[in-house]
Amino acid sequence: MELNFRSDNESPAAPAILAALEQANHGAAWAYADDPWSARLDDAFSELFDTQTTVLPISTGTAANSIALAAVTPPWGSVYCHRNAHILNDEGGAPEFYGNGLRLVPVDGPDGKFTAEDMDRLVRANEGHGVHSFHPSAVSITQSSESGTVYRPDEVGAICEKARLHSMATHMDGARFANAVASLACHPGDITWRVGVQMLSFGASKNGCLAAEALLFFGDHGLQEKAERLRKRSGHLLSKMRFVSAQLLAYIDDNLWLQMAGNANRQAARFADAVSNHSEASLEYSVHANEVFVRWSPGGFERLEDAGVQFLTWPGRDDLARFVFSYCTDESQTEALCSALTA
Amino acid sequence: MELNFRSDNESPAAPAILAALEQANHGAAWAYADDPWSARLDDAFSELFDTQTTVLPISTGTAANSIALAAVTPPWGSVYCHRNAHILNDEGGAPEFYGNGLRLVPVDGPDGKFTAEDMDRLVRANEGHGVHSFHPSAVSITQSSESGTVYRPDEVGAICEKARLHSMATHMDGARFANAVASLACHPGDITWRVGVQMLSFGASKNGCLAAEALLFFGDHGLQEKAERLRKRSGHLLSKMRFVSAQLLAYIDDNLWLQMAGNANRQAARFADAVSNHSEASLEYSVHANEVFVRWSPGGFERLEDAGVQFLTWPGRDDLARFVFSYCTDESQTEALCSALTA
Amino acid sequence: MELNFRSDNESPAAPAILAALEQANHGAAWAYADDPWSARLDDAFSELFDTQTTVLPISTGTAANSIALAAVTPPWGSVYCHRNAHILNDEGGAPEFYGNGLRLVPVDGPDGKFTAEDMDRLVRANEGHGVHSFHPSAVSITQSSESGTVYRPDEVGAICEKARLHSMATHMDGARFANAVASLACHPGDITWRVGVQMLSFGASKNGCLAAEALLFFGDHGLQEKAERLRKRSGHLLSKMRFVSAQLLAYIDDNLWLQMAGNANRQAARFADAVSNHSEASLEYSVHANEVFVRWSPGGFERLEDAGVQFLTWPGRDDLARFVFSYCTDESQTEALCSALTA
Amino acid sequence: MELNFRSDNESPAAPAILAALEQANHGAAWAYADDPWSARLDDAFSELFDTQTTVLPISTGTAANSIALAAVTPPWGSVYCHRNAHILNDEGGAPEFYGNGLRLVPVDGPDGKFTAEDMDRLVRANEGHGVHSFHPSAVSITQSSESGTVYRPDEVGAICEKARLHSMATHMDGARFANAVASLACHPGDITWRVGVQMLSFGASKNGCLAAEALLFFGDHGLQEKAERLRKRSGHLLSKMRFVSAQLLAYIDDNLWLQMAGNANRQAARFADAVSNHSEASLEYSVHANEVFVRWSPGGFERLEDAGVQFLTWPGRDDLARFVFSYCTDESQTEALCSALTA
Repeated sequence: MELNFRSDNESPAAPAILAALEQANHGAAWAYADDPWSARLDDAFSELFDTQTTVLPISTGTAANSIALAAVTPPWGSVYCHRNAHILNDEGGAPEFYGNGLRLVPVDGPDGKFTAEDMDRLVRANEGHGVHSFHPSAVSITQSSESGTVYRPDEVGAICEKARLHSMATHMDGARFANAVASLACHPGDITWRVGVQMLSFGASKNGCLAAEALLFFGDHGLQEKAERLRKRSGHLLSKMRFVSAQLLAYIDDNLWLQMAGNANRQAARFADAVSNHSEASLEYSVHANEVFVRWSPGGFERLEDAGVQFLTWPGRDDLARFVFSYCTDESQTEALCSALTA
Repeated sequence: MELNFRSDNESPAAPAILAALEQANHGAAWAYADDPWSARLDDAFSELFDTQTTVLPISTGTAANSIALAAVTPPWGSVYCHRNAHILNDEGGAPEFYGNGLRLVPVDGPDGKFTAEDMDRLVRANEGHGVHSFHPSAVSITQSSESGTVYRPDEVGAICEKARLHSMATHMDGARFANAVASLACHPGDITWRVGVQMLSFGASKNGCLAAEALLFFGDHGLQEKAERLRKRSGHLLSKMRFVSAQLLAYIDDNLWLQMAGNANRQAARFADAVSNHSEASLEYSVHANEVFVRWSPGGFERLEDAGVQFLTWPGRDDLARFVFSYCTDESQTEALCSALTA
Repeated sequence: MELNFRSDNESPAAPAILAALEQANHGAAWAYADDPWSARLDDAFSELFDTQTTVLPISTGTAANSIALAAVTPPWGSVYCHRNAHILNDEGGAPEFYGNGLRLVPVDGPDGKFTAEDMDRLVRANEGHGVHSFHPSAVSITQSSESGTVYRPDEVGAICEKARLHSMATHMDGARFANAVASLACHPGDITWRVGVQMLSFGASKNGCLAAEALLFFGDHGLQEKAERLRKRSGHLLSKMRFVSAQLLAYIDDNLWLQMAGNANRQAARFADAVSNHSEASLEYSVHANEVFVRWSPGGFERLEDAGVQFLTWPGRDDLARFVFSYCTDESQTEALCSALTA
Repeated sequence: MELNFRSDNESPAAPAILAALEQANHGAAWAYADDPWSARLDDAFSELFDTQTTVLPISTGTAANSIALAAVTPPWGSVYCHRNAHILNDEGGAPEFYGNGLRLVPVDGPDGKFTAEDMDRLVRANEGHGVHSFHPSAVSITQSSESGTVYRPDEVGAICEKARLHSMATHMDGARFANAVASLACHPGDITWRVGVQMLSFGASKNGCLAAEALLFFGDHGLQEKAERLRKRSGHLLSKMRFVSAQLLAYIDDNLWLQMAGNANRQAARFADAVSNHSEASLEYSVHANEVFVRWSPGGFERLEDAGVQFLTWPGRDDLARFVFSYCTDESQTEALCSALTA
């Protein structure tokens, strides 16, 4: 039995997604997102989010995040994000590249989340130095967070409200947005536009697609041209975009995305239970979505590896490891993992 | 009957390519090109090209071209290319973006091709001004060209030799590389590394794939780290890269790529014949590959459109139109086009 | 006798300018352009130009030009300029650097000048390709031109009007602006804001200062913050800016700038006369300001060099040379040059 | 009596520096640093530092720092510096601009200094993530530091040695280098090339010049072309560079630079004494050079201001203020400050 809990992005695509690719693969279709599938995205996502939504299909989350941030941040502007943020630590400097040298400012906070006050304090400390320092221009919230936790609607709202007071734009990195919505059992609008989020990197690749993300703009925004220019200029305007758009349409059709995320979350919860009850291992962060961070002895992790379990030991920390559960993690695989843990 | 001759990038994917995607869609695979499909690329292309070849799978040609050029050109360097080049006119400034403000220098030449002497003259005219001007750093040859013509091996070789004398790197934009090889009926090495080409953007999307290109480096090059950094930094390192690599492997397997290009070329040749024999319409350029540029009266083009034929009228030229043939253009479609032309 | 006609930027500073430095060199002054000299610039130039003018002192023309263009051009925007333009050929890619990869588009035209129609035709030819091509964003006119000619007010106005119709911003590279105003004997407003120029790189270094240029914005513009951010970010916000501002104030005081340019122009006219009357040498361009381009035999130029005359032979042209006259060119030097020419 | 202790960059130029300008202001001189003054820089500084030194005159420290760092750091590289570093907090993002999106990594440490171990720990924590994270490429040490302290030769050496082990380049921001050398009473080579520093931003503007800095490269370095390209491309290659070079030559002639720094340091030491002996005020950092950071009550600082003393209250800290002493601070001014403190 394959016991791979390294990352949800190592999973294959869901059958329904592949079927959508096949259905889209008939006849000619105009290139560069002028095809019928891409044309349906705005309506489909507007309905899903219950507000006017503009959609840019893009094939990676790194590109979606970077285009969003560069669209609202001048080269001399800064973007506030959590110290653990993917945009800060895992995107090879893409935000700085797309943003022509913008700066990311890390905000500390427990459980992989920061508060409105944490951000506000830092923004204020950087004020008053004019052209000599960066201009606070945007905030980016990862939902669910890089630590597997989820921001509640009021937490997101408080951050967005502070951002509004500082005239900062608001972005959500939703690489695992489905897991957050499934975890909160809320409407997707409740943690985005209804509480002040203006742009969302809506992830799908990690949750059952092959390579499909969408950059969403809510309401009137005026950023369409900038975003489209950035997408083209970075080589992300696929000629056969229909194949990305078809994935996205199938992904949000009939709640598929939430069903898939729901399974991932349930498997993570089951494992989190096992860790909580373990005599030596413990949870590093609260478990809200589909990632479980386990603190344990190096020897413990070695025994797991010997049992054939794949997972990531955290860089620079031999006492910390991450286990990720996906839409296609089978209950039997989770049970086998739990058994290996307690063996 | 669908009569779409707008562009080969409007065609669907070939059945064998889609089948390869499905075969790759089983079980977990390490992310970020650390999967078994990606691991086979170097060997597969080294065999195809009959020399040591390093392969970076990338999902668009714009990104492949830009990464290649930025890897060998400093921000104060210039890249010489034909005045009609895609990198100059159709990539939204991607080379300048990836290259941090490098400059593209257009070289004129008939039939969409430039000669070694054309380039050499321009390079020499830009010499001697030191830090005040750009440093000639690379040349990019489009094969087959944007005008549907093909460079012969000796023509490519002469350009590369002049480039070598000026210490300029050599790149080939092979968005329609298959059509060129099929046209010349040569070994793919004969128009690349054997005559001095160091980097090739090996296109596959236009010729039957969904979204798959490969940036190839021939021989010992030392550019791997730069290229990989640029791919990551631009958001082109797909997490599920196996799906790009699987397309590429299927594409070059058992000569599929050349069979597909061969059909496109044959259909184009058939239509070129019809144009040549037409009393009013004429060929703007020689027809070597799968694109046919037709000079005709605006009224003539209108009649074609009325007959349901789709094609591109050239921007700023109402007497010029482009017709592109693809791997899946059926003979009956070509015949219908010819009939509409002569009607 | 020193016979240096290589460039006006090889001349020393005028006594009045050096005296102004000394006068500014007393006591402390707040840094970063918050000093009393810098504070007087807006008023002094508003009076000179007879309209509300915002002034950014900067120490080089390359920086002034680049900041101006980057302030109005997005990275995917293009700037139209003459094929001979300094920004295109002599600034080492500074506009591309400051503009994060913007593109310069050369416009051809005789006598170093282009017309409104020349530009318009090119802009239209680049239209209609959306995100795939650059967006025409600005035009830059060099006054006096790199060929020593001067645009008349109506010529500048026609270009600016076409630019307005295309929503393009208008910039004047006035490295030798004083020579143009002296040549036309017009009000400085007549060739700038009154005919549609929005930004002027007001040169002073070539005409008697040590290192002093000013970027001027006319009227309401909203570009102040962008320009100031760019100046700081590029390291051009001098801490002791008072010394640049003091030069500028002295330069425009009591018509000094026009008197100095007037002398340069007169010496050039004298030499142009001599060339016109020469049996073999001839003028390459009309002579309106302080530069004279001479077409002659290589042997002729060699004899001049042997006579101790310094001048620039044009790169790639052994039959063309440039002679530049400055504020401090003495009549006796010009006469000596003329004698050497006719010897 | 003027009691301005806001910053040494608010001081006028020293008489000897202005005299040097006047002496350089005779006759023509080739432009763009091809003049006799600039030609003497390499020899003059090689003698001063007792090793082969290449000198780029530049008019601001921000530009010198940014050019140095961009010359050794790829866009995906990171530069380690103290959390208080000028390059991090006060240069408007110039390093990110010149470095095309490189990243600065703050290192914490007391008294405005970090240790080799502090840096090493951080570098190691960022290892092992390949293209997903930045590559540690350089370290920048400010000497004297932004807190008015000075690194001892062994401290600089230890940092450079760790940098060497990580293949990181070494840079010193010497905006107040003279104050450091005067403080340590050492040879300038002892805190630079002899202990592993490869590049030095040699500051002069703050210590008696008008606008003159020099970027020094020690020994064989191979960075000349990159640095010169960056200087040109950023608009920092002054046409009349002789006036910057003449300042630099006068500055280091006959120990003038150290005499001037010596006075600044002595005045600072006198004031530090007064603060140390004060009942309420205290020193925030050790005082090694010409800056004194005082912790006191807001009311205390207000009284000082009422007494006509000018100084900077630290942004975000109403209990901290900085007092800077310059080459021309007169003993009577320092005494007046001390009296105001104790009044």
